[in-house]
Amino acid sequence: MSDQIEELEQAAVEEDENEAYSLDRKAVAAILTAVEEGDQAGLTALMEPLHAADIADLLEQVDADDRAALIRLYDREFDGEILSELHESIREEVISLLTPEVLSEAVRELDSDDVVDLIEDLENDQQEAILGALEDVDRVAVEQALSWPEYSAGRLMQREVVMAPEHWTVGQTIDHLRKTAEEDLPDQFYHIVMVDPRLHPVGNVTLGKLMRSKRDTLLKDILEDTFQVIPAMRDEGDVAYAFNQYHLISAPVVDDEGRLIGVITIDDAMSVLDEEHEEDILRLAGVGEGSLSDRVIETTKQRLPWLAVNLVTAIAASMVISQFEAAITQIVALAVLMPIVASMGGNAGTQSLTVAVRAIATRDLTGSNVWRVIRRECLVGLINGLIFAAVMGVVGIVWFGSPALGYVIATAMVVNMVVAGLAGTGIPILLERFGVDPALASGAFVTTVTDVVGFFAFLGLAALVLL
Amino acid sequence: MSDQIEELEQAAVEEDENEAYSLDRKAVAAILTAVEEGDQAGLTALMEPLHAADIADLLEQVDADDRAALIRLYDREFDGEILSELHESIREEVISLLTPEVLSEAVRELDSDDVVDLIEDLENDQQEAILGALEDVDRVAVEQALSWPEYSAGRLMQREVVMAPEHWTVGQTIDHLRKTAEEDLPDQFYHIVMVDPRLHPVGNVTLGKLMRSKRDTLLKDILEDTFQVIPAMRDEGDVAYAFNQYHLISAPVVDDEGRLIGVITIDDAMSVLDEEHEEDILRLAGVGEGSLSDRVIETTKQRLPWLAVNLVTAIAASMVISQFEAAITQIVALAVLMPIVASMGGNAGTQSLTVAVRAIATRDLTGSNVWRVIRRECLVGLINGLIFAAVMGVVGIVWFGSPALGYVIATAMVVNMVVAGLAGTGIPILLERFGVDPALASGAFVTTVTDVVGFFAFLGLAALVLL
Repeated sequence: MSDQIEELEQAAVEEDENEAYSLDRKAVAAILTAVEEGDQAGLTALMEPLHAADIADLLEQVDADDRAALIRLYDREFDGEILSELHESIREEVISLLTPEVLSEAVRELDSDDVVDLIEDLENDQQEAILGALEDVDRVAVEQALSWPEYSAGRLMQREVVMAPEHWTVGQTIDHLRKTAEEDLPDQFYHIVMVDPRLHPVGNVTLGKLMRSKRDTLLKDILEDTFQVIPAMRDEGDVAYAFNQYHLISAPVVDDEGRLIGVITIDDAMSVLDEEHEEDILRLAGVGEGSLSDRVIETTKQRLPWLAVNLVTAIAASMVISQFEAAITQIVALAVLMPIVASMGGNAGTQSLTVAVRAIATRDLTGSNVWRVIRRECLVGLINGLIFAAVMGVVGIVWFGSPALGYVIATAMVVNMVVAGLAGTGIPILLERFGVDPALASGAFVTTVTDVVGFFAFLGLAALVLL
Repeated sequence: MSDQIEELEQAAVEEDENEAYSLDRKAVAAILTAVEEGDQAGLTALMEPLHAADIADLLEQVDADDRAALIRLYDREFDGEILSELHESIREEVISLLTPEVLSEAVRELDSDDVVDLIEDLENDQQEAILGALEDVDRVAVEQALSWPEYSAGRLMQREVVMAPEHWTVGQTIDHLRKTAEEDLPDQFYHIVMVDPRLHPVGNVTLGKLMRSKRDTLLKDILEDTFQVIPAMRDEGDVAYAFNQYHLISAPVVDDEGRLIGVITIDDAMSVLDEEHEEDILRLAGVGEGSLSDRVIETTKQRLPWLAVNLVTAIAASMVISQFEAAITQIVALAVLMPIVASMGGNAGTQSLTVAVRAIATRDLTGSNVWRVIRRECLVGLINGLIFAAVMGVVGIVWFGSPALGYVIATAMVVNMVVAGLAGTGIPILLERFGVDPALASGAFVTTVTDVVGFFAFLGLAALVLL
């Protein structure tokens, strides 16, 4: 239990700091008052200190009417950053509230990769409006980026790269950097990518090394040791994994011929990692995508399919029960106790399932350890099963004064918790093999198995032993 | 349903790339053969191309015996990086397998912050062994870092900072960088931190800007616009949040007097973000910490408490059922149908719960929108409730030929799903207010509520209407 206490203490710590960085309630209230009173100067003053990301959070947290009023009043102050920080679910709404001038003003400030990120989920007319607002060179960059599939490295990368040929010295590279015009450089860059004559990336040099080395040092003598090249078609989730696994700061992106066409930096990888996690956690709970700023109808639609699946599985479980109506009418205690067996199995199954899904996502569950993991999960199920079997046996005897009933529920408990370990691990692995995201579908399968097995084992045994 | 199809397609894409960075099964097999045959040269050759992080994964995935054999054979090749990439659960085991020489050799290669990360969870004797192996200067650095509480920014930061006074020019700064000895600089740095005379950080200059500006430019004229200072006592989870929210690359850490004492870089923040997500997803499933490399006994211990909690809540639900034994003996259909009501409520509750827990973690659920969110979740519960009430009403009539039974289950369904929305949102919010990590404890509470309410509403109504 000690680690629970630890966790609770730690939780307490976390709680204090949840205040850190979260929008202060008073500030929000003040802003909304300014909006009500139509006090533009006051509003601008209150918003001025806020980071675009916080303003976006604010817009997500207030209701639609306040949002509209706020944006109309804020008007010209509206910054492009805010748009790219906004959750997709309200982006279109917000964009449609902006006057064409403000919108084009706003998007012109953005880097091409932010614009891509901004418009990829928009309706065509809104896409047109934004593309139209851009200068030609930016529009071309955005359209080229959009030519890569969604969720690919090509979509994620920025096209501005700082590269240097293999034979260059530190001095040549620095002079080149100085000569290059501001707009041809990424506004943030940490490495020089060294390329061979066919534009294939061969190494990274950090700016720190570059600055500290003598002018006549060859770039190839100060290369970083970890260097990963990313194919443009690679899934962004794998890119995020690579950055996290290999502690990359930036990595060159190449086309099918291996030519350098862009670079991905860790800050992009970090937000992808964050989105992937959100996806996993929501899918495990059967919530599809979904965010707080979605409207009631959308949310209902997102959740309905998973509830429907659950209804079917619940009915299947009920059909198992109905096979034993006779037993239940004779021994009503069965009806009282049967949910316990099912629920314990369901919980144990969810535990194994979550560990398995997470391990698949982090590449820790692979062909080489799959059987050992399954064996381990079943063993864990067996041990916990035996422990709780003992407890339930006693409960059965004490509560209903029937040792036989005690044996029955104890045995059913062991069976169901072993099955839970097996199903909880095996099902996500199978789904993954068949190309289905295990986070998406495992839950329903696993609980079906544990419900059906739980009811069948308990009621079946009872019918055999007690009648 | 279209978004499901979309999700499935996307899932298929994900699957292909799961191969991308995962250890190739053949490679693992080859390595294990080399180990069996005691072929040291072969093993070294096979391991040579692997990144330390991949070797760590390999060690986590093979079983304890293979691990021991592999490490003994690999011996002097063993790199310090591997240790810091290893999961805590097997670090101690691996370290105890290394000869003192190899161990000290290995840890001497590491940066002080990696050493800290490595030893903070170790037994004292192992800590001593490693600290003893370090040069004095590194040992002092490590011990100072350990003086900050676990999970604090002070623990996370690296102490080597590149700073410059406000009045410096680009030229002065570059000359200073050149003069500074290698070991006094972080091996990776992206910003110069500008400090005032009292060592308070006042701004960041990126190396890119520094390199491209004229030598006589003042640092204060080329500062970055986003700049965040982090108190050393701040929780690392909040630090990770700030990096993700404000797209920071590195941020200065200050003591209580606001003096610069270190810097945190985005790669550290990224791994914290990853750990925090792992914690959330595992806690939501009632799996304390836990990893695949834990031994069966540890895993059993980790999961037992949550199963125990679930047993108690399941028994509570059974007690509700036992109040209606009379009704069940007269109408056994009640026993058949009651799990459906409970299970639908449980699922709807888990959906709301997960969204709420995630929103609390991302600071999207705050004082300013809490009531609207609760209202929304109840409304969603009501709508889905009405839909499935209709379905179940029909099922009740068709299956058991009793319209009355249909009304009863339909009504119970609506009640329970509204309650699920309320409990699923309200409980995590309350827990968070009381300083308990909502991810840790919400699940048990919510399912208790939905089970109890589900059984009570269904059986209670049945007793009233049908008897």
